[in-house]
Formats: sequence, C-alpha cells, structure tokens
Amino acid sequence: MKVVFIGSGNLATHLSLAMKGAGIEVVQVYSQTESHASLLANKLSCSFTTEPESIVIDADIYIFSVKDSALLDLIHKIPQNKGLWLHTAGSVPMGVFEGYNDRYGVLYPLQTFSKNRDIDFSIVPVFIESNSAGDEAYLLSFAGKLTRQVISLSSEKRKHLHLAAVWACNFTNHMYLMASKILQEQSLSEAFLLPLIDETAAKVHQLSAREAQTGPAIRYDENIIEKHIELLSDPNMKELYRLISRNIHKESSNE
Amino acid sequence: MKVVFIGSGNLATHLSLAMKGAGIEVVQVYSQTESHASLLANKLSCSFTTEPESIVIDADIYIFSVKDSALLDLIHKIPQNKGLWLHTAGSVPMGVFEGYNDRYGVLYPLQTFSKNRDIDFSIVPVFIESNSAGDEAYLLSFAGKLTRQVISLSSEKRKHLHLAAVWACNFTNHMYLMASKILQEQSLSEAFLLPLIDETAAKVHQLSAREAQTGPAIRYDENIIEKHIELLSDPNMKELYRLISRNIHKESSNE
Repeated sequence: MKVVFIGSGNLATHLSLAMKGAGIEVVQVYSQTESHASLLANKLSCSFTTEPESIVIDADIYIFSVKDSALLDLIHKIPQNKGLWLHTAGSVPMGVFEGYNDRYGVLYPLQTFSKNRDIDFSIVPVFIESNSAGDEAYLLSFAGKLTRQVISLSSEKRKHLHLAAVWACNFTNHMYLMASKILQEQSLSEAFLLPLIDETAAKVHQLSAREAQTGPAIRYDENIIEKHIELLSDPNMKELYRLISRNIHKESSNE
Repeated sequence: MKVVFIGSGNLATHLSLAMKGAGIEVVQVYSQTESHASLLANKLSCSFTTEPESIVIDADIYIFSVKDSALLDLIHKIPQNKGLWLHTAGSVPMGVFEGYNDRYGVLYPLQTFSKNRDIDFSIVPVFIESNSAGDEAYLLSFAGKLTRQVISLSSEKRKHLHLAAVWACNFTNHMYLMASKILQEQSLSEAFLLPLIDETAAKVHQLSAREAQTGPAIRYDENIIEKHIELLSDPNMKELYRLISRNIHKESSNE
C-alpha cells in the first residue's frame, strides 16, 4: 500500500511517521515550501515535491493534511486518480472532495500535535468517513494499523467533536497560560502547578467533570472571587475570571 | 508528635490520612457535624468531638482545615495552648491567628482533593509559613515527612499561587465540562477526549503553555471560530468561546 502526504506540518509529520512505524509505505511528500517538504521526506526516506501537478498518480491513499484554507485551494490542483483521497480536518465536511475525485473520505485523529513531542498513536482515537461503504471498510482496516480506536463518524458529528476538542485542549491550555503568567509575575516556578494539572486531568478518568469541580467558584465564595479579581491586573483576565466563575456557579445550579 | 484535625472535608481527609501513613499520630478530629467527625476519626482510629471547647489542649500541632468563613469563626472558640496552629487555606493570611495563639502558621498543599480519589501526597508541593523562625524550621521538617517538595512562602505570595491554581485546576475542569456537554448533546462518548486531555496536560511538562498552544484561535482562523460559535446553543458558552479565543489570539501577538 502506497501513501502520499500532502502537507508537512505537525499533524502530517506525526501521522506519516506513525504510518511508517506501522509498516505503511509513504512514497511522497508534497509541501509548497521546499525546506518543509524535504525535511519530512528525509524522515520518511521518500521523495518530495513542491508542485501539485508532480504528485504521483499511482498511490493508494492521498492524505491532505494542510490548513483548511490551503485544502480547498489544493484539491482542484491535483489530477483526479484512482486513489482514496482523505483529509484530516475536524470541521471540513467530507463533501469538499465531491467532483474532484471518485473515492474520498476523512481520517481525523483527535489529538494535539506539537513539534518535539512524541505521540503514542496507538491510543489516539481516529474518526473515519468515506463516500462508499467499501472504502469505509478499507479505511477501518487501514486506520486500525495505526491505533486501537477507529470510529466511523459523519461530517456533521465530527464538527461537534472538533468543537469539544477546542474546549478540552486549546482552551484548557490557555487556562494553563493564564496560571503561568500569574506565577511568572510573582517569580514563582511554574513547575509547582504540574502535580495539580496532572491530577485535574487524571480526575476526569474516574469522575465526571461535574463531580470533579472544586474551588471558590463552585462554592460561590464571593469573598475569594472578588479578592482574586482584584489581584489580576489585566482587564481581559479579570473579565475571563468573572465569566468562568459565574458559569461554574450556573452549571452547579443546573445539576 | 500529636496532631489534632479541625475539619473533616476532602482536604482534611486526604491530609490526615497522609499523615497517618507517614507515621504521625492524629489524636482527635473536630467537626461540627457528628457523622463527618466520626467517619474520619474511624479512618484514623482516633477520638472525635463536635465541640470546640472539647478539643484536647496538649497536642503539638492543630490543623484547621475548614472553609475560610468557618475558620474565622472557629479560631476564637478554641482555647489558647502551647501547640502550633496551622491553617491550610490558599487565600487566608497567616495573621488571621494573631492574638489567638502564640505559635501559628500555614501548611498549604497545592492540589485538588475529591472524594474517592487517592492522592500520592509525596509529589504534592506543600507551602509553609510561620510567625517564628524556629517553627518554620519545625514545619519544614514536619511537612517533609509527607512530601518531597516543601517550600517556605509568604501569605502575600501564597494568595497569587492560589489564584494561579484556580486557573490551572478549577477553570481547566470547567473547560472539560463544556467539552463533555457538547459530546453528550451529540450522544458521543466523553471518553474520546481522554487521550487529548492527557496529552494537553503532559505537553506543559515539556513545553511552555505559550509554545504548546494549538487550534483555531491561535491561528486566528475566523472561519472556524464563527462556525463554532454558531454551533453552540448556550449563550454563555458562545460568550465564553468568543472571549477565550480573542484572548488566545491577543496573547500570541504579545509573544
């Protein structure tokens, strides 16, 4: 089985290397930036190109792993072929491929990918979709080489999943940033927070997030809440603190 | 060394059991609610009381582990003695004890405590403070029996640390709740998010939160941001989504 990677960012890098590790042959990498294309191609020991029209036409699977805006631009530049075209985006419907190739679908890994972080792909849930039942079965088996969790999911459901992931990952990380800014201002080590961050994540394996909630907002301790807002100097952080605390309290009354 | 626990909530329970595990003798538990007092006293194999005036006067350490509002109320009900009085609150200054006992201080464990969750206390950072250098040294050694990380910290610094902890833990957990609500509405399993939640927490052991940020807000992908806000039905979630995304974008321009 031959795979072409269109894209060379964090997700493309992690996903293609996981494929190589699973014994899947990645034959070519495309990126419009030569240094990016060659860097990933070197890691994969395969060829690369910076021109969409030079993408090989005899591969089995084409994985479009680029920014959403670049995806729409690239699809129509690549010659139609007999391969299965997949994108890896949470919020782009599968139908974006319609009219450009016969066989298409989605392979969406629910994970956050950063440079210099190794990911154990075998525990990453991968959500798949295809425009034919045959290719959906094919994808199920293909993705099963990478991970133990492969789930068929519609484009409609996938966009809600992506939205949930923004809260669970991107917004959570922003909370970490706010915390670390407060410690930096006080010349306190950010490392003090790590056992707390780890336990907060570990708790929701065992308790629901509703059961796991602690702190001044859930108790609606207005004395502490007001003191905290006073301690914050940045007006955006004050507003965010107030809004999140109010929402925590509101959710607890909805129980 | 004899310890009295004033309080029987989650923190008092975890802390007193960690002390018992470290070979420290807890001699008595006070709680105004008899069932709570007896439950914890049973776990510790010690006596209990529901009356502040019946608290034994010959212990070495008295740990006030109650809500901030209850703390102020209890301090003046307990007869002055030769023991070291400590509270465990992030945002209450040590000086709250002034005039009520000669020896006092703070023992603040930076962790989130819930029922039915075992905590490995040996990795919890514990912040201490005392009104005398002698007792500070005594506390350093005492807390050192519980954990590998004991740090002397002023009341002023501790309140900022508590504020940071609210972001890193309480607000983070609220982000998990928002994510799980979105999945519940779509009848999707919340367990899908666990590898993502774990990796988001694991990343900040290696990268700064600023470096670790991913997602539509950091790219300022307004197309996705607007689609996501449209998908949300709850006006509070819409407002929160907009505000956090704006703040993520703002922070990235401050780099």
